[in-house]
Amino acid sequence: MSDVFLQHMNLQNNLLLRAAKGEQVERTPVWVMRQAGRVLPEYRATRARAGSFITLVRTPELACEVTLQPVDILGVDAAIIFSDILVIPEAMGLPYEMDEGKGPRFPNTIKTKEDLARLSTTEIEGKLNYVAEALILTKQELNGRVPLIGFAGAPFTLFCYMIEGQGSKEFAKARRMMRENPELAHALLSAISDATIAYLKMQIASGADLIQLFDSWAGVLGPDSYREFSLPYINRILAAIPEVPRTVFAKGAWYAIEDFANSPCETIGLDWTIQPELARKWAGAKTLQGNLDPSVLYGDFASIKKATREMLQKFGTQKHIANLGHGVYPDISPDNLKCFIDTIKEYPNEK
Amino acid sequence: MSDVFLQHMNLQNNLLLRAAKGEQVERTPVWVMRQAGRVLPEYRATRARAGSFITLVRTPELACEVTLQPVDILGVDAAIIFSDILVIPEAMGLPYEMDEGKGPRFPNTIKTKEDLARLSTTEIEGKLNYVAEALILTKQELNGRVPLIGFAGAPFTLFCYMIEGQGSKEFAKARRMMRENPELAHALLSAISDATIAYLKMQIASGADLIQLFDSWAGVLGPDSYREFSLPYINRILAAIPEVPRTVFAKGAWYAIEDFANSPCETIGLDWTIQPELARKWAGAKTLQGNLDPSVLYGDFASIKKATREMLQKFGTQKHIANLGHGVYPDISPDNLKCFIDTIKEYPNEK
Repeated sequence: MSDVFLQHMNLQNNLLLRAAKGEQVERTPVWVMRQAGRVLPEYRATRARAGSFITLVRTPELACEVTLQPVDILGVDAAIIFSDILVIPEAMGLPYEMDEGKGPRFPNTIKTKEDLARLSTTEIEGKLNYVAEALILTKQELNGRVPLIGFAGAPFTLFCYMIEGQGSKEFAKARRMMRENPELAHALLSAISDATIAYLKMQIASGADLIQLFDSWAGVLGPDSYREFSLPYINRILAAIPEVPRTVFAKGAWYAIEDFANSPCETIGLDWTIQPELARKWAGAKTLQGNLDPSVLYGDFASIKKATREMLQKFGTQKHIANLGHGVYPDISPDNLKCFIDTIKEYPNEK
Repeated sequence: MSDVFLQHMNLQNNLLLRAAKGEQVERTPVWVMRQAGRVLPEYRATRARAGSFITLVRTPELACEVTLQPVDILGVDAAIIFSDILVIPEAMGLPYEMDEGKGPRFPNTIKTKEDLARLSTTEIEGKLNYVAEALILTKQELNGRVPLIGFAGAPFTLFCYMIEGQGSKEFAKARRMMRENPELAHALLSAISDATIAYLKMQIASGADLIQLFDSWAGVLGPDSYREFSLPYINRILAAIPEVPRTVFAKGAWYAIEDFANSPCETIGLDWTIQPELARKWAGAKTLQGNLDPSVLYGDFASIKKATREMLQKFGTQKHIANLGHGVYPDISPDNLKCFIDTIKEYPNEK
């Protein structure tokens, strides 16, 4: 029996992992995308002490501290390591700056095959050793209370940033390269995939119990482009990390759910535009994660409880991991977020 | 027989109107969202002469000039009047500024019911008389060559701008108001709808042969919110203008296509994430419009022709109006755009 499997066995609360693997659960587990973030005043205090977002990401003690906050304060069923998907481009040789409120910016971008040749896919583990340290430290501090989720950006989403240099509504520059120079696009996507596999294997070795891939910009592709430029790289990464349960969350890519049904993952994350009934039909035997509209948490407790219970009823109690359909908005009241979480935890007793 | 009907009869090319109404056509009609825009050097020259985007919108002779350009240069099967969806908030008392490249900005936004009370839904026709003049002038200049499309923003999309004050990835402020103060949100949406109905009736009286509603931000809502905050207002507007064929284009709202199948419209516009086969299943008897991925036009002629023919084959030759799945990107070569249009016009002879 592997050490990893023993880790799972030793968790006091392993609802998340059982639900991901399709095993029977007493109640639906819940965690929240961006739970370790600006929604919590405690996060904002640590962030202020760190001085900058990037320092917070790179300092294992501080990253550990904000990772634990939602477990202690909100009572979620999983921690997710505090980090950023853009550490991979950085480790490959393309550093970024973070202007909080405005988002990330890359001073240099990839335009030619010479730019690509200057990137590196080796020694990723060494360059991102601070993430390994943060995971090991967090695992110690959690002391088996809940599982620890590791993550990475999907290659297409990282590709978008590396071409465009910043967030964008349409990512037209990135999609232009896909059409004008598909060979270069595929070579870059492949390099990102290699770096990501090394990175995720390191995360698993450092204690990550489950891995989630975030394809945040999937929605700008259509079905044909997705099958050419995103899905194969996601599948390559997922297949390389069979040690732990794997989740893929492709925001806006409702059209790819039927594809993910055949991907080497256990769970498919859903944004809030997708009806649970339709997702069940498309997703085959996979576990589903999501998908309350984050803006519901702007409402009062009664409306939050009502919408959360409706969501739970639509998904059913098995093969479901409750979450929002996207990251929690930073100006949501923590009390409202807690109302969402508590409603899920109390649901089996109230039905 | 009404004057409007006679207008349709007198058109030399009425493919668009016949396809919209589900009548038999010899070939698929084609026009392109943002065909009167920065993609054409001729547009950029007129825009430079105008001095500002808003002057261009407000000067009938100049608006007419750029409306005709794609008919003359690209050979599309319809003109669409050059204007902006934000003239409605402006006519209601909320002026905007346009920083080309960055998008629109409203110095004032709606926060309270007092802000709403200061808006007006009367005399819309008088305040937007320059649009009527542009339509009448364009109709004269077209001299029956092709139909002239009028348009407006869907209430939810205008609501987003009026609350948020500018474009946004998530429109969290607008969605916050929907949750915190649904009565105010509905009152504002209703006022926008009243103003829009008056505006569209004026467009039809001034010669618009078909009306399209653009719900550009529909994708930030989910199915339940869409049915509460967008669809009823769209349906109210569509029902008020039965004189001409009506198209609804809700970007990102794939989940609403089955709803639109029961809306008082003839045509449903599709963005490029939607497979034509699936749209046919969901859209019932409606005509479909779209939906090539605009980024395909970054490729070479061979790849543009291939993707365009595949699209035509998937939709079939009837009940389809060819278009891109969103506005053409400004940095596309006009030759590539013409390749898309010509491929559609030549298709029946090549099959």
